[in-house]
Amino acid sequence: MTGTSRNGGISTHFTIENRCPKTNARAGRLHLPHATVDTPVFMPVGTQGTVKGVSAGTLRSLGYRIHLANAYHLSLRPGVEVVEGAGGLQRFEGWDGAILTDSGGFQIFSLQGLRRISDDGVEFQSHLDGSRQFYTPEAVIEIEHRLGADIIMAFDECVPFPSPRATVQEALERTHRWALRCLEAHQRWGMKAAGGWYQALYGITQGGTEGDLRSSSARYLRELPFDGYAIGGLAVGESDEQRNEMVEVSAATLPNDKPKYLMGVGTPLDILEAVRRGVDLFDCVLPTRNGRNGQVFTRTGTINLRNARYASDYRPIEEDCDCQTCRSQSRSYLRHLFQSNEMLGPVMATIHNLRFYQRLMAGIRSAIGEGRFPPFYEDFIAQYGTSLEGEQ
Amino acid sequence: MTGTSRNGGISTHFTIENRCPKTNARAGRLHLPHATVDTPVFMPVGTQGTVKGVSAGTLRSLGYRIHLANAYHLSLRPGVEVVEGAGGLQRFEGWDGAILTDSGGFQIFSLQGLRRISDDGVEFQSHLDGSRQFYTPEAVIEIEHRLGADIIMAFDECVPFPSPRATVQEALERTHRWALRCLEAHQRWGMKAAGGWYQALYGITQGGTEGDLRSSSARYLRELPFDGYAIGGLAVGESDEQRNEMVEVSAATLPNDKPKYLMGVGTPLDILEAVRRGVDLFDCVLPTRNGRNGQVFTRTGTINLRNARYASDYRPIEEDCDCQTCRSQSRSYLRHLFQSNEMLGPVMATIHNLRFYQRLMAGIRSAIGEGRFPPFYEDFIAQYGTSLEGEQ
Repeated sequence: MTGTSRNGGISTHFTIENRCPKTNARAGRLHLPHATVDTPVFMPVGTQGTVKGVSAGTLRSLGYRIHLANAYHLSLRPGVEVVEGAGGLQRFEGWDGAILTDSGGFQIFSLQGLRRISDDGVEFQSHLDGSRQFYTPEAVIEIEHRLGADIIMAFDECVPFPSPRATVQEALERTHRWALRCLEAHQRWGMKAAGGWYQALYGITQGGTEGDLRSSSARYLRELPFDGYAIGGLAVGESDEQRNEMVEVSAATLPNDKPKYLMGVGTPLDILEAVRRGVDLFDCVLPTRNGRNGQVFTRTGTINLRNARYASDYRPIEEDCDCQTCRSQSRSYLRHLFQSNEMLGPVMATIHNLRFYQRLMAGIRSAIGEGRFPPFYEDFIAQYGTSLEGEQ
Repeated sequence: MTGTSRNGGISTHFTIENRCPKTNARAGRLHLPHATVDTPVFMPVGTQGTVKGVSAGTLRSLGYRIHLANAYHLSLRPGVEVVEGAGGLQRFEGWDGAILTDSGGFQIFSLQGLRRISDDGVEFQSHLDGSRQFYTPEAVIEIEHRLGADIIMAFDECVPFPSPRATVQEALERTHRWALRCLEAHQRWGMKAAGGWYQALYGITQGGTEGDLRSSSARYLRELPFDGYAIGGLAVGESDEQRNEMVEVSAATLPNDKPKYLMGVGTPLDILEAVRRGVDLFDCVLPTRNGRNGQVFTRTGTINLRNARYASDYRPIEEDCDCQTCRSQSRSYLRHLFQSNEMLGPVMATIHNLRFYQRLMAGIRSAIGEGRFPPFYEDFIAQYGTSLEGEQ
């Protein structure tokens, strides 16, 4: 099954290669200007145009072909003109893979201080220097056009969790009106980046934890010619059950021939639950942020390398892991690095965690491809969290 | 010419391969248990058992086969038993090259707070937790024996600069008495590391900026069976002229068949001056510490990547540099990383600086080997510092 984008399939089409016969999980391939990406895929977060502590070369060696960046952050620093002058964000970073820019709606609506929202757009203060900024859907699409990511996100309004239903609904309706304006702006740019390649534009569904609003948001956006669809506004404090339910209703309503992207999620278990419900793309700060704090992932759960029990533990984080960290460094040495506030600790823990996530996704893809996703899912859940420390 | 150590040449001998006919520069080879090292060599500083921000694999890829660590720091954290339990510092770090441990005299005598020096040893407070510590020459050699570096340094008394001549002389005489005790302790350990391999023990000459004391220190120590000799207590605030004079008198007095190590020095120009006077080994925090602050080395001088002039400078730090940084990242991107306090900035600047120092030393070795050290020295000096920013 092929979902060809409005770009005529030139550079941003999506093919589904395998479907799980018992769940909604599917394995596919996303063809982007700067990379071909196998799905389900996890995209590491590189808000400022760098996955923290990891060079482009290392990111590639870990198996990644796409990462996230943030249009809002990059527009303030270094500024779109600097990135555009480099020939786009991929060249600016020296990264030979693909990039997805989040529009920054989530960040802007999380800011403290002055913020005025109207149908036209949102006025707010820069988190860097307090300067007054006014972002409209058209302005955000221009920023993303000039940054030049392979996939760009529509500008949406995000509400805090929990919010009254009326607030959720109002923001949802504005998000829908803005979605149309984002599409029109994107079409005015010829659906291309300033660098000349096609860009895929994804719409973002919202709806808080109101199942019927989630469903109506997906129904509204699926009629619009987006190249893919995101499920936004989750992983903000709702329960696992609420999140799984919202993912289920959203993914079931969104068109099956387009990529489905669950924003900001999550733990290995969250990802498995969402893959099961048909999600193809993920991003989350967990492997990088937690790695910087000394928390690393293993098949039996997370462990914290600062723990005194690892002082003389000369085993790698995971015996069977093929990452640079596990092949050369022990838990004992890593603990020493963290205890000494040596930056090599965060760097090496991040490398392991990114490799762990990459291997998890590769395992998921193989399982779907070989028709054994349900037992893979069961086995993973049964084993994960059985370590002494468990998941923290 | 071969200087075979008391170890019978089994694993720590030094051969001089080429001598400059016009200066005292020489190129040699140092055979150590964990690596063979071409000299003159620059050893990156890894005080805590890590060259800051650089993994063992990366360090090797930059051409390094030896780095420094600090016995005092490692004895306090993670503790010698943790390192010994790993099978020695090389295994603890996952580093397949050689290591030199500085005894920590310089660090201990730089500490604030309680400190009582007697002929027996020095009582001081740990910089980590204020706990009372008492280090004797024998205790320090035991620490170094158990850490297991390829080269270990005698325990010396360092005085601040400037100090009255009497203070310098008193510390010097104590350093000499301690040198004998270090040698005896080393011999009691069979001149071997706890891990079983031979360790080279280097004596440290002192003498402040008093030429006659420097000379008498070198004369005294050269009669003792050290495997190599260090020139300590420089790069602490004296002028370039004073330093060069002290290096000259020390290097000229120390035996020519043994390695000569100038501790804590220095800039590319400092290194050239010392090589010219016969020095073989160097260590310094400059490439790593300055790299972390955004200052990088080029053939025409240092530049600071935080400088606004690099905001849209899409060139690499150095066009002809073969390092990972210069091959994939621009000054513009690096500046963005530093402006955003992203740790990839310090990591990549450190990688470039270490590669710059490695290429400098390789250039020096080739020039000596090919009989063209004097013009190499002249050319380097003429070009260095001609950039707009110059050396900072």
